Amino acid sequence: DFDGLLKKVKEILESNESRRIPKTPKGTRDFAKEQMTIRKKAFSIITKVFERHCATALDTPAFELKETLTGKYGEDSKLIYDLADQGGELCSLRYDLTVPFSRYVAMNGLTSFKRYHIDKVWRRDNPSKGRYREFYQCDFDIAGQYEKMGPDFEVVRILSEVLNALNIGDYEIKLNHRKLLDGVLEICGVPPAKFRTICSSIDKLDKQSFEQVEEKGLSVETADKIGTFVKIRGPPLELLSKIMGGTEGSELLKHNASKEALGDLSILFDALYKSRCIDKVVFDLSLARGLDYYTGVIFEAAFKGGVQVGSIGAGGRYDNLIGNFGTKQVPAVGMSLGIERVLTIMEEKAQNQAVRATETQVLVAVLGDKLAVAAELVSELWDVDIKAEYKVHKKVMKHIEYAIDSKIPWMVIVGERELNEGIVKLKNIETTTEEAIPRSNLVGELQQRLKLNP
Amino acid sequence: DFDGLLKKVKEILESNESRRIPKTPKGTRDFAKEQMTIRKKAFSIITKVFERHCATALDTPAFELKETLTGKYGEDSKLIYDLADQGGELCSLRYDLTVPFSRYVAMNGLTSFKRYHIDKVWRRDNPSKGRYREFYQCDFDIAGQYEKMGPDFEVVRILSEVLNALNIGDYEIKLNHRKLLDGVLEICGVPPAKFRTICSSIDKLDKQSFEQVEEKGLSVETADKIGTFVKIRGPPLELLSKIMGGTEGSELLKHNASKEALGDLSILFDALYKSRCIDKVVFDLSLARGLDYYTGVIFEAAFKGGVQVGSIGAGGRYDNLIGNFGTKQVPAVGMSLGIERVLTIMEEKAQNQAVRATETQVLVAVLGDKLAVAAELVSELWDVDIKAEYKVHKKVMKHIEYAIDSKIPWMVIVGERELNEGIVKLKNIETTTEEAIPRSNLVGELQQRLKLNP
Repeated sequence: DFDGLLKKVKEILESNESRRIPKTPKGTRDFAKEQMTIRKKAFSIITKVFERHCATALDTPAFELKETLTGKYGEDSKLIYDLADQGGELCSLRYDLTVPFSRYVAMNGLTSFKRYHIDKVWRRDNPSKGRYREFYQCDFDIAGQYEKMGPDFEVVRILSEVLNALNIGDYEIKLNHRKLLDGVLEICGVPPAKFRTICSSIDKLDKQSFEQVEEKGLSVETADKIGTFVKIRGPPLELLSKIMGGTEGSELLKHNASKEALGDLSILFDALYKSRCIDKVVFDLSLARGLDYYTGVIFEAAFKGGVQVGSIGAGGRYDNLIGNFGTKQVPAVGMSLGIERVLTIMEEKAQNQAVRATETQVLVAVLGDKLAVAAELVSELWDVDIKAEYKVHKKVMKHIEYAIDSKIPWMVIVGERELNEGIVKLKNIETTTEEAIPRSNLVGELQQRLKLNP
Repeated sequence: DFDGLLKKVKEILESNESRRIPKTPKGTRDFAKEQMTIRKKAFSIITKVFERHCATALDTPAFELKETLTGKYGEDSKLIYDLADQGGELCSLRYDLTVPFSRYVAMNGLTSFKRYHIDKVWRRDNPSKGRYREFYQCDFDIAGQYEKMGPDFEVVRILSEVLNALNIGDYEIKLNHRKLLDGVLEICGVPPAKFRTICSSIDKLDKQSFEQVEEKGLSVETADKIGTFVKIRGPPLELLSKIMGGTEGSELLKHNASKEALGDLSILFDALYKSRCIDKVVFDLSLARGLDYYTGVIFEAAFKGGVQVGSIGAGGRYDNLIGNFGTKQVPAVGMSLGIERVLTIMEEKAQNQAVRATETQVLVAVLGDKLAVAAELVSELWDVDIKAEYKVHKKVMKHIEYAIDSKIPWMVIVGERELNEGIVKLKNIETTTEEAIPRSNLVGELQQRLKLNP
């Protein structure tokens, strides 16, 4: 009958419901095995550079009070993840690491702080290839009053050191100054109220067409004039002295903002030159950066290798953000590595190499069924920090297959006969050589071999 | 007038509103400086042990689909943080690392997986001293079919290795078997439907009073009988053989569940004995563990040092959790270190020691105002991986004070005179000795001194 059939269909559907394969939320990923190996390696390289620059690590909560994030991200605020209102405070997942850093400095009344932070952030963006809702950021920031342009120099140098250390290929760091942009816009006759809007258009500017800027309600003449300025790019020291000696320079030096900016850049480029990392830097007047809070030097690193990934790092000076949290003004400058893009490049490179997920050095293979025999042998290896696994199984081929599959270089084989004779067999998987050694010498003999052939 | 006054008060209040000091959400913390140094040290020690056991790292999203967490935590489900419904899937912050691990194994159809995971979890618990809403967990789990009791042995051994390596002081690992408990309850005449409820009462049992169990509707006689069993505790091998030879044993061997458990424990204790870590283990029939999903061996580590912190690690076998995700049954066993409690102990110990937040080896002190001079010198040190800071300031005492305050052992001092003479001054802060060395030998001379006195 129909009702019986309906009931059956319902049952099948319901059982399928509970039998369906679980998944992760949209735009999020698990990281495991080889991918995790690459991530850990990258994080360790980055951490080493950050610590060489004597920063301390900071770890902040995954979520902040909603009010902490309010008014910091302009239009992008709609991408913030809120926690459900389950009673108590309203909270949101952090959107970046800069705002939590600023909140921390303000909250603790610090006047100077140099910190790095490598952790996840969350954005309710539309997931697409290479764009996720949960991803890592690697930030380095310096807050406080220091020698003029000192911290600005150091963060650019750090970005360059990190990209060199990661060994991903060639890149360039485009660099500009917000106040120089302001000067340009002033010279071109843009009303100050429109500075920020035009800025973000310049940032997206495809140098061939200038329609976007014209759409913002500027005259074609003004847009053309801006266009002439922002086409200027070149090696920092040379370009700066060319500008200072040319007609652009004399115009720019008349305006306070751009005069200050050119002075800043002169100090910065000198330091970068002496630090021998200026060859990676391009002075580019078209660089504007989207974020509202920048107030001085801004920069962005672009990968020049084969893979098209866009920006692989960026940063700048933001002197008002910490003060926004309602205590005192503390100037700050920082940089954020585009780590997910860097990892894409590293993963692509790794496809041609054999990356191991674990680094097991020795497999203790016990023939038979005695767990205690394996426990005793493998524990001696763990005691001296040898990375070891064990396996208890009757068939020796099962053991050998496992060692080969897992790329484990050494095997310790013990069966009934070896136990009785007080020996163990040491097998080198690559050379397939096997030797019998006294049970009591196992640790020493293994340590010696691992030293020679780690 | 009153209205004017009111307006003024309103203005002050509103300006205070925006001026108030920001804070972190209730029950969450920032970690920085010395506290972070201790955390990083602990995580690195733990990771080293986990990797010695050849596990791979797994990183899962901070939030899971709400349905993934549903029905896993019993009463405690009310503590799960939900994300706001902003359209799309309903998600919740992870509550532990075990469910994401199980979800991962099921989702990828794995039949074996050995992983560790060190990361934050979130619980909407009432914050109190030592209890937070965001905290770290350090988990090690083995899923898959292996030699009998092999993974059980390894996770207990790992917990012991980790606690030894962290060097926090004496501890004991209480160990029991869920099926042995089931046997005890069966023998004592508890109806199977009540097993889980009674179990959690035993777990909270203060051995002096047995009221809680009686409240669950058991007869005084039954409760007394349970009481006799669960008072049994002692050294594993001795106690096991005593039980097997005594009246309790003959009763327990009659029941399938407890017979199986005693067999398991015999294999496990033999392996732990051969592995030379059984002296930390106590066979304790009162241990029950709160979580519903355990199906075999269960254990819990208690700190025996001065600080009262409760459990510092726990775990057990859970053979049905992965199968719950609707694919195939994969048995699993794991352990979770009570890392926040361990850190409390480590922080307490560190109060008597000088913990440095950074490890700056050298301060490059430039007298005057030339950033480029500092940039050149300090970059040479960074290039050879020396941890260096720089400072540009006219007054030498400012530099020295900073080095002393920051516990930086070496200073490179450069003023106008040194620049002209092509030398630098090398100052050892501890011995207060100062020597002039040629500018061109700086890196070599420093490396030599840091090697002797790092």
